Amino acid sequence: MRKKLTTAKLLLGLPAETSDLQYASGFRAPDPVVYLQTGRKRYMVVSVLECGRAQRTTCGVHVLCIEELGLPPAKRRSLTEWVAALLKRVDVREVTVHASFPLLIAESLRRRRIKVTPVAGPLFPQRAVKSKAEIACIREVQQSAVIAMRHALRRIQSATVDSSGCLREGNKRLDAETMRHGIDKLLLDRGCVGKDTIVACGRGSADPHERGAGPLRVGEPIVIDIFPKHQEHGYWGDLTRTVVKGQPSKRLAQMYRAVKSAQRAALQTIRPRVQVRSVHKAAQDAFVSRGFHTRAGNGKPEGFIHGTGHGVGLDIHEPPSIAPIPGVLRTGNVVTVEPGLYYPDIGGVRIEDTVLVTTSGWRYLYPCEKHLKL
Amino acid sequence: MRKKLTTAKLLLGLPAETSDLQYASGFRAPDPVVYLQTGRKRYMVVSVLECGRAQRTTCGVHVLCIEELGLPPAKRRSLTEWVAALLKRVDVREVTVHASFPLLIAESLRRRRIKVTPVAGPLFPQRAVKSKAEIACIREVQQSAVIAMRHALRRIQSATVDSSGCLREGNKRLDAETMRHGIDKLLLDRGCVGKDTIVACGRGSADPHERGAGPLRVGEPIVIDIFPKHQEHGYWGDLTRTVVKGQPSKRLAQMYRAVKSAQRAALQTIRPRVQVRSVHKAAQDAFVSRGFHTRAGNGKPEGFIHGTGHGVGLDIHEPPSIAPIPGVLRTGNVVTVEPGLYYPDIGGVRIEDTVLVTTSGWRYLYPCEKHLKL
Repeated sequence: MRKKLTTAKLLLGLPAETSDLQYASGFRAPDPVVYLQTGRKRYMVVSVLECGRAQRTTCGVHVLCIEELGLPPAKRRSLTEWVAALLKRVDVREVTVHASFPLLIAESLRRRRIKVTPVAGPLFPQRAVKSKAEIACIREVQQSAVIAMRHALRRIQSATVDSSGCLREGNKRLDAETMRHGIDKLLLDRGCVGKDTIVACGRGSADPHERGAGPLRVGEPIVIDIFPKHQEHGYWGDLTRTVVKGQPSKRLAQMYRAVKSAQRAALQTIRPRVQVRSVHKAAQDAFVSRGFHTRAGNGKPEGFIHGTGHGVGLDIHEPPSIAPIPGVLRTGNVVTVEPGLYYPDIGGVRIEDTVLVTTSGWRYLYPCEKHLKL
Repeated sequence: MRKKLTTAKLLLGLPAETSDLQYASGFRAPDPVVYLQTGRKRYMVVSVLECGRAQRTTCGVHVLCIEELGLPPAKRRSLTEWVAALLKRVDVREVTVHASFPLLIAESLRRRRIKVTPVAGPLFPQRAVKSKAEIACIREVQQSAVIAMRHALRRIQSATVDSSGCLREGNKRLDAETMRHGIDKLLLDRGCVGKDTIVACGRGSADPHERGAGPLRVGEPIVIDIFPKHQEHGYWGDLTRTVVKGQPSKRLAQMYRAVKSAQRAALQTIRPRVQVRSVHKAAQDAFVSRGFHTRAGNGKPEGFIHGTGHGVGLDIHEPPSIAPIPGVLRTGNVVTVEPGLYYPDIGGVRIEDTVLVTTSGWRYLYPCEKHLKL
C-alpha cells in the first residue's frame, strides 16, 4: 500500500509543534525550520536566532544558518525561499512530504520545477516502533500519570459526603476543577504538563471528551483521564480510571465489569503480528456477550462508541490505531487499550492503560490498580 | 496585495491546535473537524464523539454529525470524504483555504473537481483586531504573567549569595529550573499553562530562545520571559524582564538603559495607521544612537537580532509583526514591544510588554515595573 520512499524527505514547521520534525532532527524550537533528509545525509536550515542552539543540541545534522544560504534579506522571511535555496545547494529536485505539507509552499516549489510528492501514510513509519530510550521516556511519563491518578483516587476516598450527595474536603466541595488542578500541579512537579486532564462526573462522563465541571457526587461514575506530556523530551503517557464514591447502581457495576472484561479480552490478544481489528473485535465481542450493545442513533450514540486504542509517543495519538481498520501490531509499539461504555442516562465508564508490545505479548508501561468502588 | 475572499472558506484539523478553527467555530476539541463558512452560513462536521459537545457549545454554527452525511462506515475515517460530502450537501464547488492547508487533501478535492485556492495572508485578517471580549481574555492572562514575574523577582531579591557567586534560598541553590517551576506553578494556579518559560542567566541569555538551566549568579543578567496560555479560553500573554542580583557591570548597565530607551522609542511611535517598519526603526535607531550595533557574522550574530514585536491572541505569534516589513498597526491590535541586545560574551537583555493599540496611541494590557537591579 505504502509508496516506497526513495526521494529526499522534506519537512518544515515548528519543531516544538511538529513531532516528525522533532523525531527526525532531535531539535525543539519555537521558530520554523526546514529539514531535509537525503539518504543518510540530514540538513536543517534555521533562523539566526536558533543557529547556536541548533548546532549545540543536534547530532549528525548539518545545520545551516539562513545567512549561509546567500539569500538577500527580503527573501529571508519566506520558508519557500529557504527550501529552494537548500535544495539548490544540495542538488535535489524531488522531495517526498507528509500528507499535511502546506499547500501554498508545495505550489511555489512546483512552479520552480521541484517535484513534490505527498505520502498518505506516516513519513517515518519507524516511529511506531519505539527504541529503548523512547520506551524509557514514555514509561517515565506514564509513571507520573499513575502517581497523579493515585493522588486523585486517595482524595475521593478520603472525601466526606454532604446531605446533597456532593463530595467534600473539610468544609469545601470537591469539584472537578479542584481535582483537575491538583492532578495538573502534581504532573508539573514531575516535569509534565497535563493539557486537558478529564475529571468528568455523572451524565457528563457519557461524553468521552468532556473535561468535566462542577461537583463530584456520591454514587455516580467519575471518569479520570490523565495524559501528560513531558516538558523536556516531549513524550506522552495516557491513563484512565473510572471510580464511584459509595455504592454504584447495579447497572453501573455491570458496566464496569463489562469494561474490565473487554480490556482483559483485548489485552489477551496483543502480541506481534496480530491484526489491530482483531484486538478491537475482542473488546467489542466482550461487550456484546454481556449484553452491552452499541447504537449510533440520532446524534446520541451509546455503548462502545470509540476505537480500542492508539499509539503513544511524541504525539498523544499516533500509529498504530487499534480499530476496525487494516494493520498489525509490532514488537516495540506502545499503545493504549481503553474500551469504554457510554450511556447518556447513566454516564461513562472507561479503563485505559498504556502497554508495550513485546516479543511474547505485552506489558504495562507502568501498572496501576483498577477498582470501581472507593 | 491580498486576494479578495469571495468563495467559501474551508478549514479542517484539530480545533484545540488550530487557532483559526477555534476563532471561526468557537469550538475546542481534540478530534479533527471540518468547518465551512459561506457568506453568513457556517457549518461544522464533527465525529460522533464530539457531536453532543459541539451542538451544546457553539453558537450560530450548523453542526453536522458525521453519521448525518450518509457516508458508508469505510469512508468515515477520511477527512477528504467529510469535506466532499459537506460541499456536495451545501452545493459549493470552490473553496478558499489557508496557505498551510494539507497538500494531500487539496489534491484529492481537486481530483473531485473542487477548486481549492490557498491564500497567502491570514484567512481571517480581522483576527488581528481584537474585540472587547478578546482584550479581556488577553488582559487576564497578562495579569497572570505579571503576578508570576513579581513572584520570580521577589525570590531573586530575597535570595542570598554564596561564596561562589550563586544565588541561594536557605540552604538550597536557586537555579533556573527551580525558578521556572515556581513560575509555572503559579500560572497553573491561575488557570494558565507556561509552556516554555525562559529563565536564562549569564551568557546563556545571549541566545533569545534558550530556556535556561543551572545556577543563577550574582552580577549576571537574568532574562525571564513568561508567555502563558489560558487553559480554558486559549488566549496568550507575553512578558519579559531582565534583572541582575547585585552589581551589574558598567557595560551591562549601559545595555539595559539602551534597551529601555529603545522600548520607549518604539512605544512612542505606536498609534493607528503607523507603519510597523517605523516602529521597528525607532528601536533600531535608539540602539545605534547609543553605540549598540547589530552584526550578523559567522553564525554568532550580536546586537538587536530580532524583530521588535508580534501580535498576541489565540496564537502566541500572530499578525501584525513589528519588523522591517510592510504593514500598519490598527486600533484593537494587541502586540508585544520587546527590543533586546545580545552579546555572546556578556549575555542578553530584553524588556517586553504586551500593549493594546488604541485610537489615541497605546496602553499596557497589564503594567509591570522595570528595574535592572534587585
